[in-house]
Amino acid sequence: MNHNALLPEGFDALETPCLLLDLPRMRRNLERLSAHMERLGGHLRPHVKTHKSVPVAREVQRAGRVQGITVSTLREADYFFAHGFRDILYGAGITPNKIIHAADLLKQGCRLQLTVDSPEMAQACAQAGEAQGVTFPIMIELDTDGHRAGALPRSDRLIEVGRLLHSARHTELAGVMTHAGESYGCDTAQARKHLAQQERDRSLLAASRLRDAGLPCPVVSVGSTPTAFAIDDLQGVTEVRAGVYTFFDLVMAGIGMCSLEDIALSVLVSVSGYQRERNWLITDGGWTALSRDRGTQSQRVDQGYGVVTDRNGTPLQDLVVVSTNQEHGVVSRREGDAPLPWQELPIGSLLQVLPNHACATAAQYSHFHVVEDGEIIDRWERLYGS
Amino acid sequence: MNHNALLPEGFDALETPCLLLDLPRMRRNLERLSAHMERLGGHLRPHVKTHKSVPVAREVQRAGRVQGITVSTLREADYFFAHGFRDILYGAGITPNKIIHAADLLKQGCRLQLTVDSPEMAQACAQAGEAQGVTFPIMIELDTDGHRAGALPRSDRLIEVGRLLHSARHTELAGVMTHAGESYGCDTAQARKHLAQQERDRSLLAASRLRDAGLPCPVVSVGSTPTAFAIDDLQGVTEVRAGVYTFFDLVMAGIGMCSLEDIALSVLVSVSGYQRERNWLITDGGWTALSRDRGTQSQRVDQGYGVVTDRNGTPLQDLVVVSTNQEHGVVSRREGDAPLPWQELPIGSLLQVLPNHACATAAQYSHFHVVEDGEIIDRWERLYGS
Repeated sequence: MNHNALLPEGFDALETPCLLLDLPRMRRNLERLSAHMERLGGHLRPHVKTHKSVPVAREVQRAGRVQGITVSTLREADYFFAHGFRDILYGAGITPNKIIHAADLLKQGCRLQLTVDSPEMAQACAQAGEAQGVTFPIMIELDTDGHRAGALPRSDRLIEVGRLLHSARHTELAGVMTHAGESYGCDTAQARKHLAQQERDRSLLAASRLRDAGLPCPVVSVGSTPTAFAIDDLQGVTEVRAGVYTFFDLVMAGIGMCSLEDIALSVLVSVSGYQRERNWLITDGGWTALSRDRGTQSQRVDQGYGVVTDRNGTPLQDLVVVSTNQEHGVVSRREGDAPLPWQELPIGSLLQVLPNHACATAAQYSHFHVVEDGEIIDRWERLYGS
Repeated sequence: MNHNALLPEGFDALETPCLLLDLPRMRRNLERLSAHMERLGGHLRPHVKTHKSVPVAREVQRAGRVQGITVSTLREADYFFAHGFRDILYGAGITPNKIIHAADLLKQGCRLQLTVDSPEMAQACAQAGEAQGVTFPIMIELDTDGHRAGALPRSDRLIEVGRLLHSARHTELAGVMTHAGESYGCDTAQARKHLAQQERDRSLLAASRLRDAGLPCPVVSVGSTPTAFAIDDLQGVTEVRAGVYTFFDLVMAGIGMCSLEDIALSVLVSVSGYQRERNWLITDGGWTALSRDRGTQSQRVDQGYGVVTDRNGTPLQDLVVVSTNQEHGVVSRREGDAPLPWQELPIGSLLQVLPNHACATAAQYSHFHVVEDGEIIDRWERLYGS
């Protein structure tokens, strides 16, 4: 908030903490995955949960090979549909108390696809569809890596859910989808390639089993940022979902998916004080600014609550945020106790912090300050809250 | 959002995840600390960062012994001032890019007190006050437990900051304040009492040193939930600050400050699926619903991402949220592998999750559903975002 027209413009006019989006970095990330899809003849249904922002989604579309979007909540669906996005996969399993909301979106003309993995929810959707006078297009979620939800590709449950969805008048079996979340722990290219092939092969197996049972399976949807980049053949796969590649983050850098110089998201913080005898800089970037995510804690390099960079995005020696309270961050060295560069970082200095987990950090903000070549060129709103 | 007037009312009409506030539990918590202050002749300046909600703040006032409020951001100050709260301590160290905002609040008639702990920021406030034509009342933050920010009570820095604030025309030395954040790790009554006495004694020492140097120190402000309850004599202390006691949480229960039955905040989630072979229930309560806070990780009992209770707030066996993704929570047993109570928890069941850290979980929501005797009796808005 600029409280005085005479104040300096640009970074110095921002109240910290706030969220910065490096546009050239983001565009490079988007082009990288779109180019990979182009080579493989694949298509993306990008996940918007990472950014929840219409201007960002438009950039994603511009990079190419995009058909539709994936959302993680119905509020995201409301928001993007209100801005002209009509082909939306709601990728988290629907629950009974959200079905009416979903029906409302369909009635308004949204091509909203739901996700289920159980006979119980398939039946609940069929009944609600009848009561509401709508037909729900529904994907069956597959468990291809033991990570979370989903029916196993070889299970009877898969076929049972498929039959229920196909036979009911108010549900349409749209296909199968899976998310190989275990890929976030794959820190070699070989491990990622293996998991990507497994994600694809098990999804194709599930699709074959449905078709062999006389059921339709037009869509085969796979994805996660690591597997999307690692897959080398998409034959039979109709769409690939990925989200965090939009910005990348320290967790992704930690497994070798990107370099620190690719991370497009950062939090601008101010030095508010110091404790020299403890070798601490205190900043105004606490967990409300960075999130509590400690995704690098179990990685080879623990980056604390984030890597500290200068205003060009270059890491400042080995400074990280070592602890956070609600509105305070403590910056120190990742290792060792060499004195901090006190002279270079007086009180009031602006620092940037690269986030562990871009989705979690972005979720703390209502807007991005868009940066290009060291200048703030725009402010982009995002949907605040899940 | 109720999408259909024919839908069931109450809990079944809520879209999950959402935030529940148990009003009788909260009132009991508030009365407990107000009664303690009454016994000691003390006064509270409660921290509103835990709830960021005007109706909750009014309940806090109603419990008694309250003078003014403490905020952790200037947006909180804006929000509460707009709702008639005029006596506000901004308890996090001010930074240069927030001074104009603070000046605007003063110009509007808010008695906003700022916090500094360095000569640099004392001078910056003095200069900005002159430029803006306001006089900033300023507290000096003390470090009484090595936890975070603050000048040491015996330091030259304390006296230097005091002299700067007192001698400048546009700053007013309002007093000293400290927060014994180390108390969150004190898991015995004895340890808390020791830290509470240390917090008080070191604050009184700082006040004496300022007064001995010919400087005023009208306010001596201490506090944290554990030390506020543990202190047994408040002579010389003019106000006590505490926040999380409003709701309490699993971290506070883990150190013995409250029982699970005192926790007034919970997240209502739905069972969205299951993986029986892994003994997992999948819910729609992921980290956007619960926050990423893992405050019990280092305690004697690690409660994962939260304790699962039934709709009466009673823990369901030993079920906890063992992992979270953005919109998914995995519920399983804290220990052992006895099968989950599948029959009692079919898909669509509503569960409540008690949070590790009330401030972090509440921060994920724009409103509370207020519950009394198992009924939803109101919806209270809160300031969303920091």
